[in-house]
Amino acid sequence: MVLHGYWRSSAAYRVRIALNLKQLSYHQVSYHLRDGAQRHPEFLARNPQGLVPALEVDNGKFLTQSLAIIEYLEATYPAAPLLPASDLAKARVRSIALAIACDLHPLNNLRVLNFIGTRYGQNDAGKTTWYQHWVRCELDALEDRLSRDEETGKFCHGNSVTLADICLIPQLYNARRWNCDISAYQTLLRIESSCLSLDAFSKAAPECQPDSE
Amino acid sequence: MVLHGYWRSSAAYRVRIALNLKQLSYHQVSYHLRDGAQRHPEFLARNPQGLVPALEVDNGKFLTQSLAIIEYLEATYPAAPLLPASDLAKARVRSIALAIACDLHPLNNLRVLNFIGTRYGQNDAGKTTWYQHWVRCELDALEDRLSRDEETGKFCHGNSVTLADICLIPQLYNARRWNCDISAYQTLLRIESSCLSLDAFSKAAPECQPDSE
Repeated sequence: MVLHGYWRSSAAYRVRIALNLKQLSYHQVSYHLRDGAQRHPEFLARNPQGLVPALEVDNGKFLTQSLAIIEYLEATYPAAPLLPASDLAKARVRSIALAIACDLHPLNNLRVLNFIGTRYGQNDAGKTTWYQHWVRCELDALEDRLSRDEETGKFCHGNSVTLADICLIPQLYNARRWNCDISAYQTLLRIESSCLSLDAFSKAAPECQPDSE
Repeated sequence: MVLHGYWRSSAAYRVRIALNLKQLSYHQVSYHLRDGAQRHPEFLARNPQGLVPALEVDNGKFLTQSLAIIEYLEATYPAAPLLPASDLAKARVRSIALAIACDLHPLNNLRVLNFIGTRYGQNDAGKTTWYQHWVRCELDALEDRLSRDEETGKFCHGNSVTLADICLIPQLYNARRWNCDISAYQTLLRIESSCLSLDAFSKAAPECQPDSE
């Protein structure tokens, strides 16, 4: 399999964690996002969204959207499951993953930061204010939820890694990079510490990728 | 089942379509989003994100995030499937749904429009520019993809309704409401027309809801 991504793309980071948890081997092709490599015509012909990651699977198909890719891996390689067994538990795990993947991550994506810079004249400090605002909105809510839910365990859902953790860890990485104060998120930090003790997570970290600068 | 939503919430609109396609009956509880009803402490205690929709299922559980809710309905009520059979086809359908649910919808949500109004001084015209920009980014890409993919049929994926159509229709509704020029999206408009000929879609339309103003 070939993962088309970028070391700092947190959506690619999610897919790397999932591939590692499933113990699947893969090659990486890197697209330098700040240089706009993901908008190159050759890539756009395969993924008109012009976003990473994409996963080229062994039959030549080109899969896009990190959560769709991970659901595909889950169905195709059921060992080391990333979703719990019951339908209700699956709904809980997916809702945590989607709260991050829909309501937080896309707001703080590079293209949005570029837009508020160009159109609204926001400098680095202004972009940081924007970034931290949405992190606070969503991580406040997630900490509140996870600290109260009886289903929360060593990980977001019980004592096994799930799709929810796969989304949480890259988001916490990003939050630190943008100097967000995450010290109050005791539950999230405890879960992060459980995750980072696993090779699948630590080897997926941006700094461990071949294209890291 | 009780659907906590709002007539104009396009994420609630998705869940209404899915419930109708599955021929499931449900009550609706309405939260007036412009009045901030979704931030009332009683609702926040059940859903700390303070967003609609939420689906209260018969065992009293409170499910959040529209796509997680629809996946739950798909697993629990398999009749009238909303996902195709093969894993690769599921990945395609989910990737279309997620392109809308992650990369388009959250950028144009009320809370974001409020933020650019308050912080960046954007008036209605400025908000419209923002709205139309992201619609154009993502619907251009989606039209490009669907017009080329051989898997596209009467609907986004073949000749049966899927989760992809469930996300597309509310998004096109929103695009019109914000005066986006969608006339070039011939493939999307053709699919929309197929969908709107079905009762499950037409009865889920915002204007047909009891809380419509």
